[in-house]
Amino acid sequence: MKELEKLFDRIVQRVNINLRELEFDVHPLMNKLVPTSQMTKFYAFYGITPHHPLNLVFRHSNLSGSYFLGRVRVTNSLLYKSDIRGDELKQSGDLFQYQEFNIPVDQDEEISIEDSFLIKTLVHNYSHDPETLETFFIKDTVSTHYANIHGSPSDGCFLGPFSTVDLTTIRDCVIGAYSYVQAGEISHLEVDPGTVWVRKPGDFNFMYRYPTDLLNSYIYFVGGSPPQGIFMDFVEDRKEAFQNIYNVVNIDVPVDVPPNASLDRFAVIKPKTSIGENVLVAQRAFLQNATLGKGANAQENCYIINATLEGNDITAHGAKIIEANLGKNVFVGFNSFLRGRPNARLTIGADSIIMPHTIIDSRQPLTLPPGHIAWGMIRDARDLEFNSMSLKAFSQINTRFCQGRMLFEGSGGSFVSAFQERIHHILEANGAFYSSNNNRGHAQRNQNISINTLQPYPKGGDQEGLYPTIIIQP
Amino acid sequence: MKELEKLFDRIVQRVNINLRELEFDVHPLMNKLVPTSQMTKFYAFYGITPHHPLNLVFRHSNLSGSYFLGRVRVTNSLLYKSDIRGDELKQSGDLFQYQEFNIPVDQDEEISIEDSFLIKTLVHNYSHDPETLETFFIKDTVSTHYANIHGSPSDGCFLGPFSTVDLTTIRDCVIGAYSYVQAGEISHLEVDPGTVWVRKPGDFNFMYRYPTDLLNSYIYFVGGSPPQGIFMDFVEDRKEAFQNIYNVVNIDVPVDVPPNASLDRFAVIKPKTSIGENVLVAQRAFLQNATLGKGANAQENCYIINATLEGNDITAHGAKIIEANLGKNVFVGFNSFLRGRPNARLTIGADSIIMPHTIIDSRQPLTLPPGHIAWGMIRDARDLEFNSMSLKAFSQINTRFCQGRMLFEGSGGSFVSAFQERIHHILEANGAFYSSNNNRGHAQRNQNISINTLQPYPKGGDQEGLYPTIIIQP
Repeated sequence: MKELEKLFDRIVQRVNINLRELEFDVHPLMNKLVPTSQMTKFYAFYGITPHHPLNLVFRHSNLSGSYFLGRVRVTNSLLYKSDIRGDELKQSGDLFQYQEFNIPVDQDEEISIEDSFLIKTLVHNYSHDPETLETFFIKDTVSTHYANIHGSPSDGCFLGPFSTVDLTTIRDCVIGAYSYVQAGEISHLEVDPGTVWVRKPGDFNFMYRYPTDLLNSYIYFVGGSPPQGIFMDFVEDRKEAFQNIYNVVNIDVPVDVPPNASLDRFAVIKPKTSIGENVLVAQRAFLQNATLGKGANAQENCYIINATLEGNDITAHGAKIIEANLGKNVFVGFNSFLRGRPNARLTIGADSIIMPHTIIDSRQPLTLPPGHIAWGMIRDARDLEFNSMSLKAFSQINTRFCQGRMLFEGSGGSFVSAFQERIHHILEANGAFYSSNNNRGHAQRNQNISINTLQPYPKGGDQEGLYPTIIIQP
Repeated sequence: MKELEKLFDRIVQRVNINLRELEFDVHPLMNKLVPTSQMTKFYAFYGITPHHPLNLVFRHSNLSGSYFLGRVRVTNSLLYKSDIRGDELKQSGDLFQYQEFNIPVDQDEEISIEDSFLIKTLVHNYSHDPETLETFFIKDTVSTHYANIHGSPSDGCFLGPFSTVDLTTIRDCVIGAYSYVQAGEISHLEVDPGTVWVRKPGDFNFMYRYPTDLLNSYIYFVGGSPPQGIFMDFVEDRKEAFQNIYNVVNIDVPVDVPPNASLDRFAVIKPKTSIGENVLVAQRAFLQNATLGKGANAQENCYIINATLEGNDITAHGAKIIEANLGKNVFVGFNSFLRGRPNARLTIGADSIIMPHTIIDSRQPLTLPPGHIAWGMIRDARDLEFNSMSLKAFSQINTRFCQGRMLFEGSGGSFVSAFQERIHHILEANGAFYSSNNNRGHAQRNQNISINTLQPYPKGGDQEGLYPTIIIQP
């Protein structure tokens, strides 16, 4: 394991060099967070389909429990139970439109992960940055449990647990636990835990910050021990169900799956779950007594329990929906935690937007009316009032608006329509609109994935836990 | 599957070109022998250990159900449930001694399989050919069920079911079903089914030929259907037990394994089996109520059922030992079939040699005394008398000797001591003599293998069933 330990030290040093101006030391946070003995226990996966680009190159890395799809290059990195999705890569010959620019893509885009340590991180490559079209880089970066790196190239950064960077190129930044950043480009910033920040320079700026004391009971992370709180307990309590599906080579599909839908072989499906047409259930999704109507999706690391999604609903990476009814076209953003109770269910009206990193955790029945947007910490009807608005009203904001802990500047109309366009793109990309061979998306393309498994060097030498160089190409 | 079918046609054509002088057409034999639909069902394995050289390069091939270890290059080939062992490869810097020659090995040896179709074949690379030290080639070759290619480079050949080429370089040859050839170099020969031929040019020549009618009830192969007979029935009857061990990711070891022994994760172990020190049990071995004494081994595709091996016994690739007691230091050669009955057990005395491709199938108790050699078809005491001799008597032959269907020419002493040296090498290589960290062999080196699994392109395109290019290097 000597090599693994050297690799850990190397990565930590490189990240610290990048973060020196912020005087941020990742060593006490990362040290012993995942013991090297743990990194030798699991195997990695790569998916091969007839529809996805293929070029995987792994060198001098540990990949334990991680899943890869598409064109991915991993060098000198530790990837622990991460999902690296290369299914929305640009291709040579594409024309990338950005404002008034039309930029030709001159080689197939690939994900490149170098000198980085990602723990249970979801990496999705739908990248927007016009400065780096061919390489989606993650370099000198450390990310912790259930962070999302979503279309966000990253260089020299630290991401706290359950944080998300979304369509943002980040350089030399620290993103605190449960912070969500969608801001185009940022550098040399330390974002406090529990910050929800959506910015389009010159157009709008949305900012919410969680009260620290309340946030700490959901997610709390300091050096010396793993992240703690309700989020971690919730996930840990359901860990065993995943172990069972990794222990067998072939798994019986426990539910009817329509021919135009797809259920990943590494999703957990508990009884009384129903999967509608054009539905996508991704790997590491957890469904229990869940009804997914036509075109709904359940993305990586999401949990849908005792809940009904009427159709064309989006459950983004890491979102949790418990004891809830969702009308049609509801968007539930990254790592949101929506928890009703058996006698106090949540109802989310049709066409509503639950902002990324929203916590609705109520012991009373709560209803968000149709066509509303909600954000932040909502534990009762009063919170709901402070932390939601109708989309119509929100669209009418045109300068500056404050409500509770939320501050908005700019055009509410732009903000709402940017969200709605994004939602439309997500549904389309996931295959929700598929019909008679048109509008094929992930739900249709992911049906016949061959899952390959890779193991590290076994016990008995300095290389233990490292993977050999592995190249997979057409 | 279009590509798979094209590949099949290409291989068949190339082999037929090589075999044109023999007017041998492999097409009717191979056509539909393994339906392409069958080739898409299984995944391939490669083993990684700290002790074995690593360099696997697969291109434009199907590998379904095959197992690889060491440095192996596979191009334009169909490998169906074959075992390719690269654990006795020469290394750059080795000095290869052959008669008066000392030849430096100038690069690491690798197995290269090209334009070939191997069905359930064991390939072991302990190669002797001084003309090709760095490449162990299998080219334009077709081999069928349970053939062994053992230290035998092959170019342009057809191998029938349960045939073995051993330490023989073969070019443009047809080896009939259940024939065993150990002859140095041969070319443009058609060897009839059931031939056992061991030759050292200028030194000795051993030849036995099975009576065709009796052989046919054990193994019979003509075009248009798979091989038939007792051998195939025996193996097919036990197929399900293997299916069970391939269905799970991690398997509980069902028996105590001493720390200096190794039991492969893909062996079948049925109850009441006991594994002694320094024992090697290879993948696809089948043990049921078997006692393996210190230093005994059970090689690929062997079956040991209701039998006791006292120690330092060799069960070569594909050998079957049923209802039998073996004394110490017994060698049971390739694909031999030794079957006693519950009330008519076989006894093989210590230090005896069962020649490769020997059938002892008796309904009466039979005993081969210690220090004897046996060969050919033995069904009762009379057969045993005709088809065995004491090693001492055999060693005294010095010109020409005939007994039953066996003809021997040359030095019996050389023949016996060549065998004994070989047996010593096999025990040593397999780790039978391991003690206090000395004489480490496969039994000790194979303990910590990481088994990786590879899958072909899934349904949905011309590539279905082909594997992508896969490269695995240190």
